[in-house]
Amino acid sequence: MAERLRGIFTPNLVPYDADGGINEPELRRYVDWLIERGVHGLYPNGSTGEFTRFTPEERQRIVAIIADQARGRVPILAGAAEANARETLRACEAYAEMGVRAVAIVAPFYYKLSPASVYAYFREIGLNTPIDVTLYNIPMFASPIDVPTVQRLSEECERIVAIKDSSGEIPHMIRMIQAVRPNRPEFSFLTGWDAALMPMLLVGCDGGTNASSGVVPELTRKLYDLTLAGQLDEARHIQYDLVTLFDTMIFQAEFPEGFRAAVNLRGFQMGRGRQPLSEGQLADLSELSRTLQCLLSTHGFTDQPVGGCPVDTPAPTSSGGAGSADDVSRITQAVLAELKRRGLA
Amino acid sequence: MAERLRGIFTPNLVPYDADGGINEPELRRYVDWLIERGVHGLYPNGSTGEFTRFTPEERQRIVAIIADQARGRVPILAGAAEANARETLRACEAYAEMGVRAVAIVAPFYYKLSPASVYAYFREIGLNTPIDVTLYNIPMFASPIDVPTVQRLSEECERIVAIKDSSGEIPHMIRMIQAVRPNRPEFSFLTGWDAALMPMLLVGCDGGTNASSGVVPELTRKLYDLTLAGQLDEARHIQYDLVTLFDTMIFQAEFPEGFRAAVNLRGFQMGRGRQPLSEGQLADLSELSRTLQCLLSTHGFTDQPVGGCPVDTPAPTSSGGAGSADDVSRITQAVLAELKRRGLA
Amino acid sequence: MAERLRGIFTPNLVPYDADGGINEPELRRYVDWLIERGVHGLYPNGSTGEFTRFTPEERQRIVAIIADQARGRVPILAGAAEANARETLRACEAYAEMGVRAVAIVAPFYYKLSPASVYAYFREIGLNTPIDVTLYNIPMFASPIDVPTVQRLSEECERIVAIKDSSGEIPHMIRMIQAVRPNRPEFSFLTGWDAALMPMLLVGCDGGTNASSGVVPELTRKLYDLTLAGQLDEARHIQYDLVTLFDTMIFQAEFPEGFRAAVNLRGFQMGRGRQPLSEGQLADLSELSRTLQCLLSTHGFTDQPVGGCPVDTPAPTSSGGAGSADDVSRITQAVLAELKRRGLA
Amino acid sequence: MAERLRGIFTPNLVPYDADGGINEPELRRYVDWLIERGVHGLYPNGSTGEFTRFTPEERQRIVAIIADQARGRVPILAGAAEANARETLRACEAYAEMGVRAVAIVAPFYYKLSPASVYAYFREIGLNTPIDVTLYNIPMFASPIDVPTVQRLSEECERIVAIKDSSGEIPHMIRMIQAVRPNRPEFSFLTGWDAALMPMLLVGCDGGTNASSGVVPELTRKLYDLTLAGQLDEARHIQYDLVTLFDTMIFQAEFPEGFRAAVNLRGFQMGRGRQPLSEGQLADLSELSRTLQCLLSTHGFTDQPVGGCPVDTPAPTSSGGAGSADDVSRITQAVLAELKRRGLA
Repeated sequence: MAERLRGIFTPNLVPYDADGGINEPELRRYVDWLIERGVHGLYPNGSTGEFTRFTPEERQRIVAIIADQARGRVPILAGAAEANARETLRACEAYAEMGVRAVAIVAPFYYKLSPASVYAYFREIGLNTPIDVTLYNIPMFASPIDVPTVQRLSEECERIVAIKDSSGEIPHMIRMIQAVRPNRPEFSFLTGWDAALMPMLLVGCDGGTNASSGVVPELTRKLYDLTLAGQLDEARHIQYDLVTLFDTMIFQAEFPEGFRAAVNLRGFQMGRGRQPLSEGQLADLSELSRTLQCLLSTHGFTDQPVGGCPVDTPAPTSSGGAGSADDVSRITQAVLAELKRRGLA
Repeated sequence: MAERLRGIFTPNLVPYDADGGINEPELRRYVDWLIERGVHGLYPNGSTGEFTRFTPEERQRIVAIIADQARGRVPILAGAAEANARETLRACEAYAEMGVRAVAIVAPFYYKLSPASVYAYFREIGLNTPIDVTLYNIPMFASPIDVPTVQRLSEECERIVAIKDSSGEIPHMIRMIQAVRPNRPEFSFLTGWDAALMPMLLVGCDGGTNASSGVVPELTRKLYDLTLAGQLDEARHIQYDLVTLFDTMIFQAEFPEGFRAAVNLRGFQMGRGRQPLSEGQLADLSELSRTLQCLLSTHGFTDQPVGGCPVDTPAPTSSGGAGSADDVSRITQAVLAELKRRGLA
Repeated sequence: MAERLRGIFTPNLVPYDADGGINEPELRRYVDWLIERGVHGLYPNGSTGEFTRFTPEERQRIVAIIADQARGRVPILAGAAEANARETLRACEAYAEMGVRAVAIVAPFYYKLSPASVYAYFREIGLNTPIDVTLYNIPMFASPIDVPTVQRLSEECERIVAIKDSSGEIPHMIRMIQAVRPNRPEFSFLTGWDAALMPMLLVGCDGGTNASSGVVPELTRKLYDLTLAGQLDEARHIQYDLVTLFDTMIFQAEFPEGFRAAVNLRGFQMGRGRQPLSEGQLADLSELSRTLQCLLSTHGFTDQPVGGCPVDTPAPTSSGGAGSADDVSRITQAVLAELKRRGLA
Repeated sequence: MAERLRGIFTPNLVPYDADGGINEPELRRYVDWLIERGVHGLYPNGSTGEFTRFTPEERQRIVAIIADQARGRVPILAGAAEANARETLRACEAYAEMGVRAVAIVAPFYYKLSPASVYAYFREIGLNTPIDVTLYNIPMFASPIDVPTVQRLSEECERIVAIKDSSGEIPHMIRMIQAVRPNRPEFSFLTGWDAALMPMLLVGCDGGTNASSGVVPELTRKLYDLTLAGQLDEARHIQYDLVTLFDTMIFQAEFPEGFRAAVNLRGFQMGRGRQPLSEGQLADLSELSRTLQCLLSTHGFTDQPVGGCPVDTPAPTSSGGAGSADDVSRITQAVLAELKRRGLA
């Protein structure tokens, strides 16, 4: 019996070059950076990775680059959803050959499918895939995968080995674990909702695919470690700060532009997103970027001094690049002050 | 100044062959059949046409086949939405070369975009397209296109010439017409919600892209003609019957399987859909097919006697294959009786 | 067999005195004014009448005042919903003694009941009421009354004689009429959604309970008359203007404050509402009041010149105080200009 | 500075007599029983207590009975929402005189109010109340109270001392605590969503108002104690079982009938609810009652042997009547087996 998928899998953004294509050197550099900062795995072609905005060929190229660059240092969970079950299975085959650990497949979207159809779709895939499959439930964007469907698929399809759930609902997670774990103890449960990572882990989740780990991998990893170590007061502190940071990135700009702005600030050239923005949105994004800069700077998450920010001397971080709880608190205060100044909070 | 797009544009289904590919001969035969029964235009790659379940290459092939087969007899409105604005513009160019009348572009989906992003997306397309564009608003599946956005785009982009709205909300349609028509009298408003076609036309719509016109083109066309002629009592009668038929096809099976089942009954080999179905769904679909068979048979919409149906002698239809209001009434009674027998209504 | 309820029933607001109590003299004056302007009936204790903000005793007093003042000139439809079925039946008895034509009973609210519970609730009332009952479906505020429930209640309860539907959905209205009218030809269908009044009448509705008829009874009545007379071009014109006016009153302030502001402008002292408003809201309401003043003034709907408005000489209205279609158009232009100036439209 | 409200406050059901009135002796007996089983407080006139189905006079009588019976043994949080702010303040005064610890006031319902109106409503109450006020946020039934509103009210109104949140959303709870606690360290946060009680406590909640504590007070109390003691493995076990029990009671019958059925099984005559039920619903409720009987019996939560249940010998409960984790597990297995047998799970 295989090991459960565990830990923090980063749903990485894709950097664009000046022509709007995939910036391969920057993507490779970003992969190294993430691995060095302690994420347990990588998760290309997720929602944060804007999988729907690439062509099928580009999606495969992204996974190929990342698999090549990771060189087995961390496992890869590759988003494999394509136009229909047949095309998705073809992608599964391609990713299997690239040596990824498993694929993640979002439920069909655009059409809102009934549970019976969602079941039939994943069953077709689950019985024919050459590689382990993670179900991906994100009801705000795609057809929901309900608890009886997860249970039935887990019983009928050995190669379906995990679910990534981005609903953020604790009781839903509990119901899934109750329904599946007795028969499939190695089945893994991952949460995609950063704002509930700590309590999700405490009720039984195995890890997360969290967009914030693409921005502050040190912090997300630390939250994971503290929670598993039972250091709940420190963990709660970081969880609170992560809510502030996550909310700022997710609600202050069209997703995932807030995350792209923040990764830029960590020293990467992420380029301009493929979804056109209005002039008003570009101005807002530039404001948001200044807010995030101060937030990250205060915390020691930038490599050089940055102008205009109310910078405290960042406390030297003790180990692995991860910030201390006190530092984190400073981020939060800075961002809240800044947001308040701008009338956003 | 160009003419407004007017009339009934059929969002055609695509027949599949035994391998799940596009059944080209059957598609050509279907196109002829629709044109002969009086639809004003064709609308490939709509939601009924399952555009998301094809590859980009297949979507272009579908339009190419239909344009070739139609040979200019009716205008074609080609669904052109692709992964991002650049790919969509490439599709616009390809369709322009195929000689279609205009393209229809659904708002970005999966991600739920803000009005500002929807605006920016369509503006990019509207300023660069080589062919007229119809906006496609379907808020149950894609990011909504709100009234101020329609107004602004209509003012800034000459090549945006119409909107297809599938919300089915009358006040929303009125608000759009009020906001746009004063400045753009040639701008066209089409409704995609068959269950409100008559009242939509009466408040000022120019036509519809109605899935039922792919099943009973005679009936949808007749409703359009009667409404425009001011024969409201007869039109209301047909509208009521169309609600029954439409509801049966849209709510009794996963969309668009109910429509596929009905087109099969009109004498086409539509093949099996690409979305896998559970055994329970297949059984339900087979039941639904019998219901629809009786419904269509009673009305004279089948070419030969069909077994098991409580068939009245179909009244000879007077002109062009379109049923009389009395016949239509019989369909409805038959389907309601059948649905009641099956416990569905 | 009784006559169907038909026409425009005004869901009247209640004027408050300085202490927040019911301003009886003003209410009586308002009742006379509405009847003189041609509304077909009155509908106290509706949503516009803020029934939930009164005590049970106050609700009964409101109906008593209105019944006394109307003196049989028009029928009264009295909102009778109370805390539970027993209390509601007591209210039915009280209203029966006051001589109202029928009661209207909203589905239970706060808890979102299943169709089975909604059925059981109305059945209990329908079998025990001493007075005709109108079901009141307003799914945005209360448990929805679905089509099978309406059908079943109409078959089992003779004293349930009508439904008032505020969903504004045309297909839903068609489905209800189809389901009920064959067995209960005298059953009445009223729409509560002003923005779809004309098309609702055209698909078979018998009338409306429209909040705008409490503000511009002349206009709502005229729309009703023109539609029934088949003068669709003029009717459409008024329907469009009514959408503008209705939208302004319903979306620019907390419901029903926009309507209260507008009735004030027709010469009544409506007092301050019972729902407290923030300072920002009071300022907005004061702005809105100026907008509405200009809108109504331009149209000849005020008794005296009003300061600050871009007033055209109002065209003398030809008959019964109702504005001509041209005048109506001027209202709309004025309000749109004003709203634009204020950045609201 | 006062102490924070802490612990489990039971939102008690009200037993009815044969005529549908309040069964005072049974209510008194129920109050004693709850207190003896360790709940920290009582919460009459909550949603579980069906406050909307009583007259204003009955609501006051319920609190009077409970306050009299509790005789100060536990604090009382009295639901005080009435038709409008003035009536609500009158209820606050009445409850203050009865000596309750605080009132709980749900945001206005029926109308969906904007944040500004919700703020204005609570501010009016907060500035004029003679007794401490708990805000009650239950967005599925009433106007939502958003985070900035809670923050502002906590800053402006000293007598607003707590919020009860029934949204069940962890990130929302975190955001509220972040926004309020720095300025108001004694402000209390209570969760009304039993299915997330343990993780809510772990992220910083002070307690809960949990309907399940009216059925199995021993279990809810135990979950609270274990969580606060950091015995997370045992707590998680009980939380999982509580989800099963809670889901069964809340989703298998119209709320709160599943809870009424369960309290009946603990030895109380709860009578028939005021909301009429259809025959189908009564049959379902009777089935559900058997399921719950077995569930509770297996666990040792009934006083006598009950027929038809697959009863294990209940393990003697060690302390205070609360079941051990192993017993709890047996309940769950029994209920799941039973539900599966009935095709419900």
